[in-house]
Amino acid sequence: MNIAVIGGHSCCADVAKIAESIGKEVARMGATLICGGLTGVMEAACKGAKSVGGKTIGILPGHDKDEANPYIDIPIVTGLGYMRNNLIVKNADIIIAIDGKEGTLSEIAFALQMKKPTLGIDTWDIPGVIQVKDAQEAVDWIKRRQ
Amino acid sequence: MNIAVIGGHSCCADVAKIAESIGKEVARMGATLICGGLTGVMEAACKGAKSVGGKTIGILPGHDKDEANPYIDIPIVTGLGYMRNNLIVKNADIIIAIDGKEGTLSEIAFALQMKKPTLGIDTWDIPGVIQVKDAQEAVDWIKRRQ
Amino acid sequence: MNIAVIGGHSCCADVAKIAESIGKEVARMGATLICGGLTGVMEAACKGAKSVGGKTIGILPGHDKDEANPYIDIPIVTGLGYMRNNLIVKNADIIIAIDGKEGTLSEIAFALQMKKPTLGIDTWDIPGVIQVKDAQEAVDWIKRRQ
Amino acid sequence: MNIAVIGGHSCCADVAKIAESIGKEVARMGATLICGGLTGVMEAACKGAKSVGGKTIGILPGHDKDEANPYIDIPIVTGLGYMRNNLIVKNADIIIAIDGKEGTLSEIAFALQMKKPTLGIDTWDIPGVIQVKDAQEAVDWIKRRQ
Repeated sequence: MNIAVIGGHSCCADVAKIAESIGKEVARMGATLICGGLTGVMEAACKGAKSVGGKTIGILPGHDKDEANPYIDIPIVTGLGYMRNNLIVKNADIIIAIDGKEGTLSEIAFALQMKKPTLGIDTWDIPGVIQVKDAQEAVDWIKRRQ
Repeated sequence: MNIAVIGGHSCCADVAKIAESIGKEVARMGATLICGGLTGVMEAACKGAKSVGGKTIGILPGHDKDEANPYIDIPIVTGLGYMRNNLIVKNADIIIAIDGKEGTLSEIAFALQMKKPTLGIDTWDIPGVIQVKDAQEAVDWIKRRQ
Repeated sequence: MNIAVIGGHSCCADVAKIAESIGKEVARMGATLICGGLTGVMEAACKGAKSVGGKTIGILPGHDKDEANPYIDIPIVTGLGYMRNNLIVKNADIIIAIDGKEGTLSEIAFALQMKKPTLGIDTWDIPGVIQVKDAQEAVDWIKRRQ
Repeated sequence: MNIAVIGGHSCCADVAKIAESIGKEVARMGATLICGGLTGVMEAACKGAKSVGGKTIGILPGHDKDEANPYIDIPIVTGLGYMRNNLIVKNADIIIAIDGKEGTLSEIAFALQMKKPTLGIDTWDIPGVIQVKDAQEAVDWIKRRQ
């Protein structure tokens, strides 16, 4: 199972902490964490996943795999810019949005369009997004659903 | 100038009427109407534009230009599926969203990300979208800005 | 009918002359000329088409429509880089390759893959490409086929 | 290091044997094998890589990761059709072409355009492709270069 963690490439310390917790939980469930491969929420989630031995994939907007954050195992360069947001969602079974701006909104839109389960923590309040308050609640939701 | 009209591929008669009015006004301003090339809001807007001699471009999701609605002058096939939403916005100077579901939301997200003026009529209430009540108000906004 | 003219973004004067002749003939047949929108063979072909009142579409690799050569009527920006080569071919009914390097080779490959008629003048010698010696021979081939 | 093995989705037994040998050697060098994820040359190469404990990535043209051959560790769906050929090459440090038709030719073209080392076995004879006769010769070339 691939779980996407989406959110901004910059974020405050509190959001990073939530993202790191989510990353840990994703890895503990045995899922692969997929994301946009950059900094901010993406990096914090990957750091969490790697801290407990998880696996991470980063779908990068540019042509240079060195743009991936240091916790990405499998960087995939695309040269697609923000169109790559669609690929992140396409490759995920479940999407967890944390905070984020317009880029994250485009990913939420694609996730809902593809009718994939989409959880949200402190993020866009869009009908269809299952709002949860923290990593634990997200994981509980996912486990109940399996 | 290219003005994108975005919205769902199916819509009710009232929304179609608004889209048709918008299409007319876009053409009367001398702008080219760009859209996703399909039915619903897209077709109604193109019908409006063509009724007053305007020019229309349709950026299609599939490989077959015959999928374009009958009011498209320049069909561009992409085979990109919903990733083509990004191209519609990229090719527009101003975006007008009418009604619409998740596909339209993804276009609004990309439009805001690209910092392009984005007007909305009966559509997603996203910060940054300039909400207007009808075609006239949309055109007034655009003319004031020029 | 859309006819793609493909070839390098730089070329010698002799090749430009051929491209310009081809552009004229494409327009005289009533076809729309589609190309990558840039300089070299693309610009020469568009110049020819416009000199006799033809219509031209440029599918650009970048995000800036001002990168289009001055003879492009409808610039379409993509941000897809060389992946846009596939879109040029996808939107053409017939492809004419003139000179060109690896980019042109990728377009010839896609054209043959899509089983579209592909003519070549002083270009890659790939099985399936119909080699002709000049604009007149290319046009004769196209007219015989219609 | 990522090494792409490119070739047709169907191939004869002899070609499959070569592809399997290449896959083994790629894995033995400690490189990750990247390919289009489907059958034929791609599957044979992945089978070889997995038989010696290698790692494989498949960049798929469609939306369904179950289209990946059984030897793919990391399937990446794209929905890009043959445009995904460009992504395979973009993610490789070295490209090895075996046999193949127009799809393979498009990948060779992109590889040469990106100025990446491109080896060929029984494939298109394009200037710039380093023709080798078998897996051993390919590996020798790569090792000498490192």
